[in-house]
Amino acid sequence: SISFSRPPSEKKSFEVIKCLCVCLCEPDRELVRVQDLTPEKADQLIWLRARVHTSRAKGKQCFLVLRQQQFNVQALVAVGDCASKQMVKFAANITKESIVDVEASVRKVEQKIESCSQQDVELHIERIFVISQAEPRLPLQLEDAVRPDGEGEEEGRATVNQDTKLDNRVIDLRTTTSQAIFRLQSGVCQLFRDTLTHKGFVEIQTPKIISAASEGGANVFTVSYFKTSAYLAQSPQLYKQMCICADFDKVFCVGPVFRAEDSNTHRHLTEFVGLDIEMAFNYHYHEVIDSITDTMVQIFKGLRDNFQTEIQTVNKQFPSEPFKFLEPTLRLEYTEGVAMLREAGVEMGDEDDLSTPNEKLLGRLVKEKYDTDFYVLDKYPLAVRPFYTMPDPNNAKYSNSYDMFMRGEEILSGAQRIHDAQLLTERATHHQIDLEKIKSYVDSFRFGAPPHGGGGIGLERVCMLYLGLHNVRQTSMFPRDPKRLTP
Amino acid sequence: SISFSRPPSEKKSFEVIKCLCVCLCEPDRELVRVQDLTPEKADQLIWLRARVHTSRAKGKQCFLVLRQQQFNVQALVAVGDCASKQMVKFAANITKESIVDVEASVRKVEQKIESCSQQDVELHIERIFVISQAEPRLPLQLEDAVRPDGEGEEEGRATVNQDTKLDNRVIDLRTTTSQAIFRLQSGVCQLFRDTLTHKGFVEIQTPKIISAASEGGANVFTVSYFKTSAYLAQSPQLYKQMCICADFDKVFCVGPVFRAEDSNTHRHLTEFVGLDIEMAFNYHYHEVIDSITDTMVQIFKGLRDNFQTEIQTVNKQFPSEPFKFLEPTLRLEYTEGVAMLREAGVEMGDEDDLSTPNEKLLGRLVKEKYDTDFYVLDKYPLAVRPFYTMPDPNNAKYSNSYDMFMRGEEILSGAQRIHDAQLLTERATHHQIDLEKIKSYVDSFRFGAPPHGGGGIGLERVCMLYLGLHNVRQTSMFPRDPKRLTP
Repeated sequence: SISFSRPPSEKKSFEVIKCLCVCLCEPDRELVRVQDLTPEKADQLIWLRARVHTSRAKGKQCFLVLRQQQFNVQALVAVGDCASKQMVKFAANITKESIVDVEASVRKVEQKIESCSQQDVELHIERIFVISQAEPRLPLQLEDAVRPDGEGEEEGRATVNQDTKLDNRVIDLRTTTSQAIFRLQSGVCQLFRDTLTHKGFVEIQTPKIISAASEGGANVFTVSYFKTSAYLAQSPQLYKQMCICADFDKVFCVGPVFRAEDSNTHRHLTEFVGLDIEMAFNYHYHEVIDSITDTMVQIFKGLRDNFQTEIQTVNKQFPSEPFKFLEPTLRLEYTEGVAMLREAGVEMGDEDDLSTPNEKLLGRLVKEKYDTDFYVLDKYPLAVRPFYTMPDPNNAKYSNSYDMFMRGEEILSGAQRIHDAQLLTERATHHQIDLEKIKSYVDSFRFGAPPHGGGGIGLERVCMLYLGLHNVRQTSMFPRDPKRLTP
Repeated sequence: SISFSRPPSEKKSFEVIKCLCVCLCEPDRELVRVQDLTPEKADQLIWLRARVHTSRAKGKQCFLVLRQQQFNVQALVAVGDCASKQMVKFAANITKESIVDVEASVRKVEQKIESCSQQDVELHIERIFVISQAEPRLPLQLEDAVRPDGEGEEEGRATVNQDTKLDNRVIDLRTTTSQAIFRLQSGVCQLFRDTLTHKGFVEIQTPKIISAASEGGANVFTVSYFKTSAYLAQSPQLYKQMCICADFDKVFCVGPVFRAEDSNTHRHLTEFVGLDIEMAFNYHYHEVIDSITDTMVQIFKGLRDNFQTEIQTVNKQFPSEPFKFLEPTLRLEYTEGVAMLREAGVEMGDEDDLSTPNEKLLGRLVKEKYDTDFYVLDKYPLAVRPFYTMPDPNNAKYSNSYDMFMRGEEILSGAQRIHDAQLLTERATHHQIDLEKIKSYVDSFRFGAPPHGGGGIGLERVCMLYLGLHNVRQTSMFPRDPKRLTP
């Protein structure tokens, strides 16, 4: 019962194409992109494939706005030389979000069309074919989904709440805001990899199904694996470190990491994308910090220089200050951070961990004092870091570990790792970790291991904080949290 | 009980560095790379960090081979001006695979050192420090792990079986063969992404934890997810298609895919890396085939032009013919393939699927006739493809789907997908698939969907077959199969 109707003949001027296989065999027909519709194309007859963004019939005319991603153009079907009454009626009945092919002549307009990205031209449609029909009732309206909070409230205009957006992600992702966010995210990944490849890092692929939870088994998802069970990796750390012990020298990987944490906050996901780095160093773990901060700076510069359109598109809906950073990156010691907090009235002990509110407050204090949205906090108290963290050789209360922050929120946690099996065993014992469970981890260091360190960056957090957004679900295409597994 | 001994003073000339934190603070000391040790450096005094590859004491001398990845150099500690008896003894006792820092003068040699990558120079060591000590008994010897099968059998020399290699992957990955394989793999990923980015594709990140198994639930791993259960994605296909329906136009992703298939063969893994492509097309799904085959050709050319050293290194242990490909890529129709097989004596029906032996045989026949190791088999019988495959509009027995082969083995399966909710429902019903389970998949196409197609490439298979290897575990850093979950 597959309907194979014929391709549109050269005679028909409007039709719903039922040939679902689309083998129209129109090799000569070149499709123009909406963004290329400029006055230079005036009076040309062109073909275009686009979505019907809006449609408004008015007497013998039908005005359409045709959209491709963030670009749109006004188009007109008018009774006259090139369109019949029936064709205007046909056009007026095309549902929003349907995909159409149109043949049209490009016309310069007297007055700029403020509501479209292509402001200097409009299209006079001569033929129109529906390639894919959208159902008439959309679960959300694109113009509502991009409306800034509070705007249009007086006129009773709707905004769309986040769950409705996420439930109907395939439509929500069509908005200019979503298109911009995820094009920028693609840029973050590319800048991360290009910078590291340029620095001599090798990309690795690490397994996500693992036999033992390296950090003791909390917050880990269990997988049934044939007749046994396994876990989902909470980070690629062990594998990155094995690659360093296997002489790859400097490695990175980009991939999913899984946290079975029942945290329902604006910044936690149960599955997110880790941008992970690990490298051997020569004399000081600050070589690692320098490599990571320089990579971040290259990402910030690349976004600033190549993604201004996307940044401004997102800002229209979600206004925020431009992201500020220093070169070289500001590095504060933990004790300095604690001192700044105490000066601001916070009471905390030397070896206490930073609470989330204190992290944010410190971010504001650092911004005021140093005018940067990105900094490193170095030398965390040993007590608050994982067992594999290298202690500070000069002060056993502290460690060679660091977090990095964007707009006051943590985006990376990292450290020099213990590369000596004996010390690693001592520290694991101190943390009361079952040595049997971490045996293969410890054994990786028994056959010569260079001093090394690294860290893991959360991609969604970097995008959220760079853009000044307030929920990590906005920068995850299909977010996963304790309450959301679909779409 | 952390041992913080002092950094090596300028006076000591040999020592095991117990300062595990390595904050030697030697900012002026530049470490030279082994590959840069050429006659131009003759008579210079240099510092080097490397592994002790082999060590041989002979009277008042100790010969070491020092290694960094695939490069190595001969080094000598000899009693005389710059070394004491104790130092020679110290050097002779350093275990293989330990990491050392040496200060040495570079000397030109009269006769080429055939056993080392740096054949024209040797190092005369003046100071030597052990940075990380390897345990004396290695679970495998690197020289055994790279020995070609059969070589040295008469002398009783060992080779290392695959399970021993994989059990001790951190050492096995140090071999020249492994280093070359995984550097080439890193190159495949980079070439894949760069080619597609250049073509205007956007990189996406898709979730691996999903709520429903889109293809009915066979071969899928179950994850316990808080109070419910979920699955590991067998492919990112639904999400790629949703991105197409969400106007991203052309997308790719690189990430793990999971198959709970109890297949213990040379080419199946339970977790592998998928290089996935999906794109909207204008008039014919061959636009998709052309994009994918051109991407593969760019990968093949990039490997041929930029990874000759790696290819030849692997060939030393695993000899194979250079990989051949045509431009444009050869595309055969399924019926042509069946005809070639029948001519070679195979009995099969028009709509039968290809068995693995027949795929390999067809690969040999194609190689003989067309002199290519890479080709596309197009228009598979509709009956052997998944329900979402677009039927051929001209012959309902066939479909707009294709596989791609390297050296006679499948590396990609792809198709034009059905983009119409109604036709998709009909085809799912025909396949007796529970419509309730695929509701969200089908609903993705209700609000306007462009014609589109794509495919998924197995990274490990591409590397294995390009290099002419015979087991996919050789091209997976930490392979997962029904019997292996570690390391």
